[in-house]
Amino acid sequence: MSENKLSNMLSDELHEECGVFGIYDLDGNDVASSIYYGLFALQHRGQESCGIAVSDTNGPKGKVSSVKDMGLVNEVFTPESIEGLKGDIGVGHVRYSTAGASTRENTQPLVLNYVKGTLALAHNGNLINALELRHELEYTGAIFQTTIDSEVIAYHIARERLKVANVESAVKNAMHKIQGAYSLIIMSPRKLIGARDPFGFRPLVIGKRDNSYILASETCALDAVSAEFVRDVLPGEIVTITKDGIVSDTSMCQQETARCIFEYIYFARPDSCMDGVSVYNSRIMAGKILAQTYPVDADIVVGVPDSGNAAALGYSEESGIPYGMAFVKNSYVGRTFIKPKQSVRESSVKIKLNVLKEVVKGKRVVMIDDSIVRGTTSERIVRMLKNAGATEVHVRISSPPFLYPCYFGTDIPSDDQLIAHNNTVDQICDMLGANTLGYLDVERLGEMLGSDMGYCSACFTGNYPIEPPKDNIRGDFEQ
Amino acid sequence: MSENKLSNMLSDELHEECGVFGIYDLDGNDVASSIYYGLFALQHRGQESCGIAVSDTNGPKGKVSSVKDMGLVNEVFTPESIEGLKGDIGVGHVRYSTAGASTRENTQPLVLNYVKGTLALAHNGNLINALELRHELEYTGAIFQTTIDSEVIAYHIARERLKVANVESAVKNAMHKIQGAYSLIIMSPRKLIGARDPFGFRPLVIGKRDNSYILASETCALDAVSAEFVRDVLPGEIVTITKDGIVSDTSMCQQETARCIFEYIYFARPDSCMDGVSVYNSRIMAGKILAQTYPVDADIVVGVPDSGNAAALGYSEESGIPYGMAFVKNSYVGRTFIKPKQSVRESSVKIKLNVLKEVVKGKRVVMIDDSIVRGTTSERIVRMLKNAGATEVHVRISSPPFLYPCYFGTDIPSDDQLIAHNNTVDQICDMLGANTLGYLDVERLGEMLGSDMGYCSACFTGNYPIEPPKDNIRGDFEQ
Amino acid sequence: MSENKLSNMLSDELHEECGVFGIYDLDGNDVASSIYYGLFALQHRGQESCGIAVSDTNGPKGKVSSVKDMGLVNEVFTPESIEGLKGDIGVGHVRYSTAGASTRENTQPLVLNYVKGTLALAHNGNLINALELRHELEYTGAIFQTTIDSEVIAYHIARERLKVANVESAVKNAMHKIQGAYSLIIMSPRKLIGARDPFGFRPLVIGKRDNSYILASETCALDAVSAEFVRDVLPGEIVTITKDGIVSDTSMCQQETARCIFEYIYFARPDSCMDGVSVYNSRIMAGKILAQTYPVDADIVVGVPDSGNAAALGYSEESGIPYGMAFVKNSYVGRTFIKPKQSVRESSVKIKLNVLKEVVKGKRVVMIDDSIVRGTTSERIVRMLKNAGATEVHVRISSPPFLYPCYFGTDIPSDDQLIAHNNTVDQICDMLGANTLGYLDVERLGEMLGSDMGYCSACFTGNYPIEPPKDNIRGDFEQ
Amino acid sequence: MSENKLSNMLSDELHEECGVFGIYDLDGNDVASSIYYGLFALQHRGQESCGIAVSDTNGPKGKVSSVKDMGLVNEVFTPESIEGLKGDIGVGHVRYSTAGASTRENTQPLVLNYVKGTLALAHNGNLINALELRHELEYTGAIFQTTIDSEVIAYHIARERLKVANVESAVKNAMHKIQGAYSLIIMSPRKLIGARDPFGFRPLVIGKRDNSYILASETCALDAVSAEFVRDVLPGEIVTITKDGIVSDTSMCQQETARCIFEYIYFARPDSCMDGVSVYNSRIMAGKILAQTYPVDADIVVGVPDSGNAAALGYSEESGIPYGMAFVKNSYVGRTFIKPKQSVRESSVKIKLNVLKEVVKGKRVVMIDDSIVRGTTSERIVRMLKNAGATEVHVRISSPPFLYPCYFGTDIPSDDQLIAHNNTVDQICDMLGANTLGYLDVERLGEMLGSDMGYCSACFTGNYPIEPPKDNIRGDFEQ
Repeated sequence: MSENKLSNMLSDELHEECGVFGIYDLDGNDVASSIYYGLFALQHRGQESCGIAVSDTNGPKGKVSSVKDMGLVNEVFTPESIEGLKGDIGVGHVRYSTAGASTRENTQPLVLNYVKGTLALAHNGNLINALELRHELEYTGAIFQTTIDSEVIAYHIARERLKVANVESAVKNAMHKIQGAYSLIIMSPRKLIGARDPFGFRPLVIGKRDNSYILASETCALDAVSAEFVRDVLPGEIVTITKDGIVSDTSMCQQETARCIFEYIYFARPDSCMDGVSVYNSRIMAGKILAQTYPVDADIVVGVPDSGNAAALGYSEESGIPYGMAFVKNSYVGRTFIKPKQSVRESSVKIKLNVLKEVVKGKRVVMIDDSIVRGTTSERIVRMLKNAGATEVHVRISSPPFLYPCYFGTDIPSDDQLIAHNNTVDQICDMLGANTLGYLDVERLGEMLGSDMGYCSACFTGNYPIEPPKDNIRGDFEQ
Repeated sequence: MSENKLSNMLSDELHEECGVFGIYDLDGNDVASSIYYGLFALQHRGQESCGIAVSDTNGPKGKVSSVKDMGLVNEVFTPESIEGLKGDIGVGHVRYSTAGASTRENTQPLVLNYVKGTLALAHNGNLINALELRHELEYTGAIFQTTIDSEVIAYHIARERLKVANVESAVKNAMHKIQGAYSLIIMSPRKLIGARDPFGFRPLVIGKRDNSYILASETCALDAVSAEFVRDVLPGEIVTITKDGIVSDTSMCQQETARCIFEYIYFARPDSCMDGVSVYNSRIMAGKILAQTYPVDADIVVGVPDSGNAAALGYSEESGIPYGMAFVKNSYVGRTFIKPKQSVRESSVKIKLNVLKEVVKGKRVVMIDDSIVRGTTSERIVRMLKNAGATEVHVRISSPPFLYPCYFGTDIPSDDQLIAHNNTVDQICDMLGANTLGYLDVERLGEMLGSDMGYCSACFTGNYPIEPPKDNIRGDFEQ
Repeated sequence: MSENKLSNMLSDELHEECGVFGIYDLDGNDVASSIYYGLFALQHRGQESCGIAVSDTNGPKGKVSSVKDMGLVNEVFTPESIEGLKGDIGVGHVRYSTAGASTRENTQPLVLNYVKGTLALAHNGNLINALELRHELEYTGAIFQTTIDSEVIAYHIARERLKVANVESAVKNAMHKIQGAYSLIIMSPRKLIGARDPFGFRPLVIGKRDNSYILASETCALDAVSAEFVRDVLPGEIVTITKDGIVSDTSMCQQETARCIFEYIYFARPDSCMDGVSVYNSRIMAGKILAQTYPVDADIVVGVPDSGNAAALGYSEESGIPYGMAFVKNSYVGRTFIKPKQSVRESSVKIKLNVLKEVVKGKRVVMIDDSIVRGTTSERIVRMLKNAGATEVHVRISSPPFLYPCYFGTDIPSDDQLIAHNNTVDQICDMLGANTLGYLDVERLGEMLGSDMGYCSACFTGNYPIEPPKDNIRGDFEQ
Repeated sequence: MSENKLSNMLSDELHEECGVFGIYDLDGNDVASSIYYGLFALQHRGQESCGIAVSDTNGPKGKVSSVKDMGLVNEVFTPESIEGLKGDIGVGHVRYSTAGASTRENTQPLVLNYVKGTLALAHNGNLINALELRHELEYTGAIFQTTIDSEVIAYHIARERLKVANVESAVKNAMHKIQGAYSLIIMSPRKLIGARDPFGFRPLVIGKRDNSYILASETCALDAVSAEFVRDVLPGEIVTITKDGIVSDTSMCQQETARCIFEYIYFARPDSCMDGVSVYNSRIMAGKILAQTYPVDADIVVGVPDSGNAAALGYSEESGIPYGMAFVKNSYVGRTFIKPKQSVRESSVKIKLNVLKEVVKGKRVVMIDDSIVRGTTSERIVRMLKNAGATEVHVRISSPPFLYPCYFGTDIPSDDQLIAHNNTVDQICDMLGANTLGYLDVERLGEMLGSDMGYCSACFTGNYPIEPPKDNIRGDFEQ
C-alpha cells in the first residue's frame, strides 16, 4: 500500500504532508485511545512526528492535555501517556516535515490560548500566502514560535474571534484570508470543527460511532475505530460538532474544485474512499487504461510494492497477462535505517527489496509502478529484474509524467530534479534500461476516477487552480 | 511474506526460534556491516533479541568484540556500534524467545573463553536431551549463566577440545552427544565453522562473495549482501572455513533426514531456496494442490497477508478463479504495539488488517491462509470478510491440521490448545463461520516440495524422527 | 552549598525560579560550550529544564539554533548537540517549575520570530501583572503557546519594536508596562541585551573574557568560564552589547531598590558576589549575629549541609564553640530519586543524610540551618541528632521566620503552610524537639549584608516593595 | 566525603573495586527495596555498574530474579523494576571497572545455575591467583562468559559442592584455593553466606533489623536501611544465615590480618566504622598527626572536598589554626560529564571546583588532601588557591607517599605513573607549586587507627602480605 511505497525507502520519495483525526464523544468517554488508533491508520501520511491533544468538555475552562514529539505513533505514545490524556473531545496529527534540529517546536496539534480560552489545531495542507500573511501579522506585533503555516491560521482565527460571535464564524472569516490547501480540525473547549479549503485539495471525512462524531483525513481511519462513514466534508464546508450534534456551513463552497489526483495514485491507502471514489478502484482502473494504451506481449505483470500492486492487477485483468508477485519487501527496514560506514558492497535497496527469481526468470515482465520522480529507484529495480533473469522489462507508470512542482501540500521537487522535465519518454526508457516505457495518459485521468469530480493535476499539466507564489514559499519561513 | 504473518499480530502465532549468519573475509575487511545486513534479511526468524560478535584473525589472540541486546536489528545496532565491531570474521544471531526479565542473559551469539581462547556460538534449533546433558555437566562441576541449550553445546565443545586436535573435531565429538535440531555457526579465533544436525531439521546455506565465505540460515540473507549461493550445508555435515578455504566433513551424515516442512509453509522467506527447493514454488504448489483437492465455485481467491498470498496465486492459477487483494495490512503496527486500557470498542485486529470492501462485496471468496493454530484469528478474518459483504467464504489452508507439538525448534503449543486436536474439520469450519474448509492433504506434502527430500511432518502426523522427551523440555531449565 | 540544600531533598523545599546566562564573542567563536559550562554553574537555580539558543551574527538573517528539554544540564545536552549549536552569540537558561505533562512547552530560552527577525529571551523572576497584561494582549488577538509570563514580555517587546528604532528601546518601553521581578537576557540577531527590573529583585552580572561579553545570574558562572567580573547590572539598567561594545541605559533606574535578601541566605552559591556583597561573607556574618543574639553553652556547632555550613562557621568563630561536621550527605541521591513501593522501614531522609555518631555523641550541639519552611525536615534532623547521642540540640536559623508569601520569583508557599505563620517560636521549638531555637533578628538583616543596599525582606515583614496582586497570580494561567 | 573526592573528577583518581550488600528477611518480606537503599549508601565504592538478585526461599526451587546494568543505582533501577524483584533473600553489588564494550557481561551479582540449583555471588576484592586457577579450570573443560575473577570463585564453589554436604562447606573449600582479597556475599536458594578472606583486606559487616539479617561492605549501608550494627565478619570467617538464624565458621581465621589502610584514608564513607575503628576518627587523627609532624605558621586550614575535610578539622584542632571552607564543589557535574569539543578556554576543573576568594585572599593556607597519585590535580588546586590570592599554600597529605602498586582490590597505578615513585618530596613540592609539603609518616599509621589491628600498607611500603604475581594479573584475562 502507499504507506510503504518502495521509492520511499530509497530517498527518491514523495511525501504527503500530514494526516488529521478528531473526535467528540457526546457520552463523555475518553477519546485519546480512539485518536491513537486513528493515527495508526493515518501513519502513511506522515512519519516524522505526531501528537494528540484532548480536552474535557465538562472540565474546568477547557484545559487541554497534549502529548507531541518526533517519531512514529508507536514511538511517541505509551499506554501510560494515552491513559493520562483525559477528555471527551480531542484532535490528533501525524506529520511529515524536513528533518532539522528545531522541528519539535513544529509538531502538531498546535495548542494555544487566546481570548476565549484554549484552541487546538491540526492542519493538513499548505498555504500559498502564508508568508505574506505572516508578515502582515508581524507588522501588528505578532510573535511566532514555530515555522509552520498552521500558526498563521491560528492567529487569524484568534483575531477574527474578537469580531464575531463564535469560533466557527472566526474560522470562516479566517478562510477568507488564507489561500491554498488546508483540511483543518480545530478543537475549542466545547466544539470540534472541521474545515476544508474551497478547492478541496486535501480530503476530510465525517464518521460516527454510537454517540461519537469523528473527522479524519481518510476513511481507513474510521474503519480502524469501527466507525461508520457518514460523508465527506465538502470543499469549502465548515462542520461544527457540539453536544447538540453537527451543523454545516456551506457558504464558502464554490463550483470549482481541485481535489489532489495524487491522493488516488499514491498517497491515500487503497482501502480509503474519498469524495465518492474508491482509491483501490481508481488504481485498478489506472492499470486497465495502461493496458489499453500501452499493450505489450509479455508473460507476467508485476507491481512494485506496495502501491503498484493494484494497478498491476488491473493491467493483468485487462490484458489477460497473468499477475505475479516478483518482489519480497523487508518490512523491518524502517524509517530509521542507517547505512553503516563500513559497508562496501552492500546496497540498502537489496535489503529492502528482493526479487523472486523463480517468478521472473526467462520471462517477459510488465512492471507497474505509480510514478517516477528522479528515476534512480526505477533504474535499480529494472536492473534487479534483469539480473534475476527477466528477458524483457516493460515499465508502465500509473500516472502521467511529473513536470511541475506542487504548492498544495506535497513535496514534489523542483523542475530540475524531475526526470520527466528534462528528458523525453524515450530517453527515460533508455535511462531505466527498460525495453518499453508507458505513462498514464493525462487525458484519461478523469476516466481513472470514474467520476466527474473537479481535480487538480497541476503537477502534470502546470494548470494551477490558484496562481502559485513566485518565491519559494517555505524557504523564507525558516531562513 | 512469512515475516509479517498476520497471525503473528494476534498472539495466535507460531514462532521460529532463530536465524544465524556467519562470515569470514579472507581479505581482512571488517565484516560487521555485512552481518548487520544479513540479520536484517533474517529478522523474520527472530524478533526478540539479536547480536553480533566479531574477531580479528590477525589480532592478538582472537579478542572478540560483541554487541547484543533485546530488540530488533534496527533497535540494537547503531552506526557507531557497528563501526566499533572490528574484525574480519564474525557471527550474528536473531532470536525469538519467551519474554522475561532475565532474557538479556540469553541473547546470542554466546561468547566465551575456554582452554583454547575465545569461542562465539550461534544456534538455531532445539536440543531434546539438553536437560539431561546439563545435569550431567553440573555433576562434574559446571556452572550455567543462561537458560539456553546452546550453553550445553558450548560446554561439550570446550570439553571435547581437550581430547582432540582441533575445534572442528571437538564440534564433531559434541555432535555425537547432543540430540535434536541444530544449525550452528561457531567462530573460533581463526576459523568459522558451520554444522547441521544429521536430520537437517533447520536450514543452513553456504555463500561466497569475492574472498568472503558466508554461512546463513536462508539464501535471502546471501542476496542481501550480494553474495552467490554456493550450496546447502548437508544434514550432518561440518564445514570449516579457514584462511586456506573451506573443508567439509560429512562423516556424520546419515541416510535419513527430517527437514522441517514448516520452513516451506510458513517460516522461511518466499525468496529463499533451501535444500534445492524454492520456498515460493512450494507455496504456489500447495495452492494448486488445494485447488485440486478442494475445488469450489467462487468469484475470487485472496490470500491472508503475507504468507497466504503465494498459495492464493497457486489456487487461482489452478482453478481459474481470479486472484485478488482483499486485505490492507498496516505495517506500522509492530511488535511493540500495546493496546491502551482506555479503548473500549477498538480492536487491534482492525488496525492491523483492513478489508478492501470493493474487492469482496457481493463475492464468493476463497480465502487462503497457511495454518490454523488456535483458530481465533481465522474466525475474526472470516467475520471481517462477511461484514465487508462477501456472500460466501471458503477457507483453504496450505498445510495439514496441527495435531502434535514440535520439539525441534518451533513453538507449536501443546495439544490442548490446538483447535485441530480437539475438533473435526467440520466443527472447525463451523467455529470459523466459514462456508467450507479444506486443509492440505498430508499425503501430498512431498508433492508440494516437488522433491523426494526427507522431511519432518511430525506436527501433523506425530511421527517424530527422534523420540521426543517425556517431560517438558524447556520448563525445567527455567524452573 | 545552596544548590544541595538538605531541605531540597525532603520536598520541604524552597525553589529559585531560574538562572540565565548570555554571551557574545566579538571574535566570532562559537559560544555554546561556554553557555553549557555557565549553566552547570547555575544549575542550583533551576533543575527542571534547561536550554541554549545561539545565533551567528554573521550568518543569514540571524537564524537561531536551540536545544531545550526537561532535565538537568548533563541530561539535556550531549557533545553532539553542543557541537551542533553554531553561533557567536547565545543565551542559556535553567528553570525550576512545577511538574506537569505540558511543561516542555515552557522551557526557555523562548525563541520566536517577530517583525525584525528572531528573538531569544531568558527570564529569571516573576511578573505580578502578567495575567492582566496577557488578557489585554488576548483582546487584541494574541495567541499564547506557553503558560510562562516570559511570553508576555516577549509580546510587549515585539509590539513596542514597531514603534521605536531599535530592540533596546523596545525593551525599555516594555519595561514600562511589566511589573515585578525580572532579570532578562535577550538575544536579537546582532545584539545581546541584559535588563534588570528597577527594584533589582534578581541578580544579573556582567563579565568579560578576551573579546567576549558575558551576562549571568551569578558571578560563579563567570568563574566557570574563566571570565573576569566587570560589574553588576544596576537595578533598572539596560545594557546592550553589539559588535561595537557595551552601551548602558540607566534611565529606568530609581532610588528605591529591593534586592532579594534570600539570594544571600539560601539561593545563591556561596562563591558568588552580588551587588557588591559576598554571599559567603553574608552567611558568616549571619552566623556571628546569631551567636551574639542567641548564645548558648554547647560543645559543638554544626551546619545542615550544604547551605548551613558557612553560618555554622560564623557562629563558631563568634562563640568560640568548636565547629564540627555532623552530617554525611549522599550526593548520588539526586532529583530523580523515587521511593519504591516495597519499602516499609526505609526512609528517604536516611539515605540522603547520615549523622556522624562519633561527632555528636554525648555532646551539646548547636545546629545551624538557613530556614524553616514547614518544619518537617528540621524535626527529622533534630531527631537524628538525638538518636545519635546528642544530649542537647540548639537550633539556630540564619534567617528570620517566614511569615508571608513571595510574589517575586521564589516559591515560598502560602501562609497556612508556613510553620512560623501559625506558631510562636516556642511552639516551633517544641515541635522540632529542640532544646532551644533562635531565628536571625529581622532588624539585623542589613548588618548581615554589611552594606546599606536596598533589599526586599517582604517574606519576613510583609512590606512588599510593590503591592502584590490580590488573586493567585499563577493559578489562572494554567487554569 | 570520599565518594566525591575531587581527584575523582579529574581522572587522576583511585577507585575501589566494589561494594556488596545482602539481606535475608526471615519474615518473608520482599527485600529488593532494602538492597536498593543499601546500594545507594555504597555507591561511592563503585559507579560503573550495579545489580540486584533476589530469590524467594518459599518459592519453587529458588528461582532468581535479577536486574543488572551499566550505570549508577538511580539510573539502573526504576520503581517498576524494584517492584518486579520478588523475594525474601537477595544480594546487590556496585562495581567500578575499566570501561569497555563488553562490560555488561561483567556486571554483578553473578547469577548462575549449578548442580544444586541457583547461586548468586557478589564479590569485592581481587584474587591474585585467578589467572592460574582459570587456566586450571579451562584444562578441565570449563567455559567462561565474563572476565571477572568472581567467575573463578563461582566455579570452585560449584565444583567443591559436589564433594561436600552443603554450600558453606563448598565455600570454605574454595577459600583454600583462591588467594587474595575478597569479601563475598553468596545467595543459594535458602541461604545467605558471607565470607571474608583470611587477611581481611576488604571490610564486611553484619547488621540486623527486626527479623532480617544483613551483610554489607560498610556500616553506612546499615544506617541507610535503619538496621543495627551487630559486628564485623572476621577475617577468614564464613557466616551462614538460614531460617534458623546465623552460624559462624572461623576455622579459616588466622593470626595475621592485613586490612586495607586506604579504606580509612579515602575509600570508605566517614560515617562508617570498620573492624572497630571509626573512619571519621581515623581521619581526624591523621590530621592531628600531620599537625604534629609538619607544623606551619599559617592563617587557615582547608580541606580538599570531600575526603580532605575531616583531616583538615583534625589539623586545625591540633594546631589551633582556624578551620575554613575554601572550596565550593559543583555536585551536578557527575560521572558522565563530557567536555565538548568546542570549548577552548574552559577547564573542567573550574566547573567542578571553585575557590571562595574571600576565604583565602591574603591568607597563608594549609591545604589538606588525602593523597597524591599523579600530582596533576593537586598542582591545579594549589594554583587556583594562589590565583585567588593565597599568599602561601602548605600542602599536607593525610597518607604516606604511594610507592607501590596494589594487587588487592584498588587500582593504584603502576610505579612509573606514581609521582612519589619518581620524585623526592622536595621535588613534588616544587612540581605542585606549594610552599611546603608534608606526608603522613608511615610509622604513625597504626596511631592513626588508634588500634593495633593488623593492616596492609603495602602501597606505601612494598611489604605485601601475600607475594604478588609476577605478571600483570588482569591483562591476560582480557588479552
